[in-house]
Amino acid sequence: MNSLLLALDLTGTFVFALSGGLTGVRHRLDIFGVLVLAFAAGNAGGIARDVQIGAIPPPAISNWRYIAVSVLAGLITFWWHPKIARLRSAILVLDAGGLALFAVSGATKALNFHLSPIAAILLGMLTGIGGGMTRDVLVRETPGVLRSDLYAVAALAGAVVVVVGRQLGAPSIGSALAGAALCFGLRIAALQRGWNLPRAHAEPSAAAEPEPADQTTER
Amino acid sequence: MNSLLLALDLTGTFVFALSGGLTGVRHRLDIFGVLVLAFAAGNAGGIARDVQIGAIPPPAISNWRYIAVSVLAGLITFWWHPKIARLRSAILVLDAGGLALFAVSGATKALNFHLSPIAAILLGMLTGIGGGMTRDVLVRETPGVLRSDLYAVAALAGAVVVVVGRQLGAPSIGSALAGAALCFGLRIAALQRGWNLPRAHAEPSAAAEPEPADQTTER
Amino acid sequence: MNSLLLALDLTGTFVFALSGGLTGVRHRLDIFGVLVLAFAAGNAGGIARDVQIGAIPPPAISNWRYIAVSVLAGLITFWWHPKIARLRSAILVLDAGGLALFAVSGATKALNFHLSPIAAILLGMLTGIGGGMTRDVLVRETPGVLRSDLYAVAALAGAVVVVVGRQLGAPSIGSALAGAALCFGLRIAALQRGWNLPRAHAEPSAAAEPEPADQTTER
Repeated sequence: MNSLLLALDLTGTFVFALSGGLTGVRHRLDIFGVLVLAFAAGNAGGIARDVQIGAIPPPAISNWRYIAVSVLAGLITFWWHPKIARLRSAILVLDAGGLALFAVSGATKALNFHLSPIAAILLGMLTGIGGGMTRDVLVRETPGVLRSDLYAVAALAGAVVVVVGRQLGAPSIGSALAGAALCFGLRIAALQRGWNLPRAHAEPSAAAEPEPADQTTER
Repeated sequence: MNSLLLALDLTGTFVFALSGGLTGVRHRLDIFGVLVLAFAAGNAGGIARDVQIGAIPPPAISNWRYIAVSVLAGLITFWWHPKIARLRSAILVLDAGGLALFAVSGATKALNFHLSPIAAILLGMLTGIGGGMTRDVLVRETPGVLRSDLYAVAALAGAVVVVVGRQLGAPSIGSALAGAALCFGLRIAALQRGWNLPRAHAEPSAAAEPEPADQTTER
Repeated sequence: MNSLLLALDLTGTFVFALSGGLTGVRHRLDIFGVLVLAFAAGNAGGIARDVQIGAIPPPAISNWRYIAVSVLAGLITFWWHPKIARLRSAILVLDAGGLALFAVSGATKALNFHLSPIAAILLGMLTGIGGGMTRDVLVRETPGVLRSDLYAVAALAGAVVVVVGRQLGAPSIGSALAGAALCFGLRIAALQRGWNLPRAHAEPSAAAEPEPADQTTER
């Protein structure tokens, strides 16, 4: 049980840290800036989860594996130089992987700490979106979760699978894999096929409310 | 006592979540982005408070009422389409309401957890300003609390009323209502009448220090 | 022991709060905005540390000295009007001081709470960079830690000195002073001599990846 959680958590940390490192490379940070962004992306979601459920001190700071995995991911992204034009899509795929793994590990850990099913679902989603949010805020991009493309919905779906699986007595590793696959699949499919949720029909009135800068620059 | 706190907290969550949802609509987020921003605005202040006083897990994630109220507020803002030009003032009024309710609930909960009067005042203020700060940082606006118009001062005043009321043995509900009314009234009056606190007389020297972009775009 | 920690922490709070206050003056905030930014810069790192190690409630909110020191720093910066063109360098020097003191106090407090040496080093670094990160995110600047000039490396070095000193049984005050001096010296030397760590050789491809705005405006 705990080794499943550790595996999910460490893999999620690694993939999110890769996405953070690549974001750092894209913003031309130096090597330590890249490492800091890798650590932030890989661990902010888990730290927020652990602080809220009372898992103190969070493994992200007390277990050397999380640090090693984050540093490794940061170094890999720093030395691995794809053409910069390809970075954005690599970041999106890795981010989807981190989202899936953390949604599942967040829900699993919350259940292990005896939180209610609804709390576990919510915490799974928050753990999943926390890393990418922190990464994006630090480099002043609009967090992906606020843009379209089924971001938080995918995390929610992954967490729901874990919680329902636990309720039905399914083996933990099975529902964890199913939840992560569903979340990752939903997110990637949404990116590739341009699936979007409806937006509010707010009519622009150019003078009073200029279109927010991030809408034009980010998409 | 605890039902008063719950009522204050849930109403504050609802009003701040409305402000978050409207901010999402104004930034043309999709429906789940609107819900995420509503949840963040409605619960970030309370979660920060609870984590600091050891109220673990925070009700915002463990009590379904907070989630229901946040989702409801997000859906209402999504379906309710005022002219976009009117959104900014609606957001400011709702934000003032959330500020008032959380300043009071933050101070009350801190007193219930046996923090000192000064800590309760400070925590009331932090709880009040936390939701709007998170909302604004996520959509890359300058947090209202850093602009003028008696924002943090109003929250401080509301928290002071609660703490002084407790010291004097006044009924909790009375000082809660008085504190919230004072905070809300101060904030709205400051907005309407353009009350401002003094600014530093820092002389601009255009070449070395260009005026920060947010000053020109936000106001 | 505890009085050493308190002295380090309060001095760090004071210096970071000065940097926060000056940042507020530079952005032409009003007096309360300056105080809020001073408090955030001075205390966010310590609060994040305390929440992660379970030092609840954090002294930053429960001990009046932290509040007094933050408010004092905010008022000093508000009333003290250097030519605005000189503010940026003053902020950098104060920020280096806060970084040094918090890196050392963070590592010390983590050791006192029986965290492992690696966790103490990491937490020292996080405590050091937390205040400046929060300050910069709030005014929408790119956090210094993500730019160059040996920022996080300096904090890391300071924390390492404290932890190694403890392992070797050196007097706490000695390793604290040595760690702070090393961190401050490294950071200032890097700023003055333009020491930089290597950056990734990501080739720009202007159409697909416009250079991030912060690189041109900040440096």
